[in-house]
Amino acid sequence: MVNFDKKPIGVFDSGVGGLSVLSELQKLLPNEDFLYFGDSANVPYGEKTKEQLVNFSENILDWFASQNVKMVVMACNTSSAVTLPYFHGKYDFQVLGLIEPISKFLAGQSYTNIGLIATNATVQSNAYKDTILKHSDKDVFQVACPGLVQMVEDDKLHTSEAKELTLKYITPLLEKEVDKIILGCTHYPFLSSIINEIVGKDILLNPAEYLAKEAYEKLVQNSQTVGSCKFYTSHSPEEFVRLGKKLYPSISEAQFLELN
Amino acid sequence: MVNFDKKPIGVFDSGVGGLSVLSELQKLLPNEDFLYFGDSANVPYGEKTKEQLVNFSENILDWFASQNVKMVVMACNTSSAVTLPYFHGKYDFQVLGLIEPISKFLAGQSYTNIGLIATNATVQSNAYKDTILKHSDKDVFQVACPGLVQMVEDDKLHTSEAKELTLKYITPLLEKEVDKIILGCTHYPFLSSIINEIVGKDILLNPAEYLAKEAYEKLVQNSQTVGSCKFYTSHSPEEFVRLGKKLYPSISEAQFLELN
Repeated sequence: MVNFDKKPIGVFDSGVGGLSVLSELQKLLPNEDFLYFGDSANVPYGEKTKEQLVNFSENILDWFASQNVKMVVMACNTSSAVTLPYFHGKYDFQVLGLIEPISKFLAGQSYTNIGLIATNATVQSNAYKDTILKHSDKDVFQVACPGLVQMVEDDKLHTSEAKELTLKYITPLLEKEVDKIILGCTHYPFLSSIINEIVGKDILLNPAEYLAKEAYEKLVQNSQTVGSCKFYTSHSPEEFVRLGKKLYPSISEAQFLELN
Repeated sequence: MVNFDKKPIGVFDSGVGGLSVLSELQKLLPNEDFLYFGDSANVPYGEKTKEQLVNFSENILDWFASQNVKMVVMACNTSSAVTLPYFHGKYDFQVLGLIEPISKFLAGQSYTNIGLIATNATVQSNAYKDTILKHSDKDVFQVACPGLVQMVEDDKLHTSEAKELTLKYITPLLEKEVDKIILGCTHYPFLSSIINEIVGKDILLNPAEYLAKEAYEKLVQNSQTVGSCKFYTSHSPEEFVRLGKKLYPSISEAQFLELN
């Protein structure tokens, strides 16, 4: 039985984009309670200064603290890229961002030609480029895409304007023949079908998937309960214990039972 | 809060090999209770007939049923390859095997030159070859490795005999220049350091990792509890609801609250 702490998890973004992250979190953690905050008064974050962004994050984190959350997920690439380092150890809950988990995942993959689409602020921070380089020797070809967030927030996904703007930003990545494109803004998964149509196949990576896995792993690590294991064998329990202990040191003799 | 059913999960293998699978399961599901059965009286499974293997699995599954388990993991590649299809829908708990989860994972990977080391029975069943082909167009170069299971069960991992036998089986895979080698027997992860030394780098895939993920996902799907989500916005809740519903259809208006 997994029995996590009952407190909610805070999730925030500049607007509705983080709903794509919430969706990945709920897939892996369907029993968790979430509080989602959309800072629509300040959208788009991608065009704000570092000081403004840190200020937005701090206000939201303080509010989540008042709501007694056990973890906060920055469901915004711009905030993750620019502000996350300011909050290490500042709260008594963990604050997770989007960039580290996918960077660790990429280190174990064979493809090397990686593209990124993101906001101006995320690209200028070089957070993806630097974090991916920290974990591997892979370089990232970055394209800033001003205007795309507003297309999603203004509900213009199905307009020719959205398609033309997306084509403009994707074209240089196709010319570079990238293996994969990171959706470096939580609004962009809502543009996936437009991008897949342009590319002709699905080469998109959504950092939210890897963040959700990290959130799950952190919750497991923080979890208090530990399950039991009983061992049975059809032959010699003594022999099984002797060998089992060598191969699997956490086996304890007391857990061994003969099969009736 | 994840609040799974309290019943234990059954795990079995022909001997101690399945401890490598138990270890992966416990990493992802640290709060679950497990019952492990090592059928050491009948090791090695790899040299048995299909009839014998089905009989072993059935006896063990019946015993797990009597222990009121909620799921059984066949932590044995031979049993998964040869016997799993016989038990679909026969018990009121799910029975998971090692082959399907990694085969689905491989379909999404770019490498195509895949090697497999496994027991005679697993290789002869072609279960890995067929299942991987079902999910993608990737072929598998199979090498049967009689004797390796016994090396582990006889505690001979650190002998020159174990190294020589492993080298003999790995050499044809290296000549084929495979990208990855699937450890197609749960005893083989205990040989990982010997294989890595021969290969010079870590190109091993452990099917247990992907099985553990599948076990977790199935438990989530079977879980009764569903977490809540409350939404807050700094701007117009009406606008957020309108757009949120388009992008994230499971949002309900009742869940929306204005931020105080």
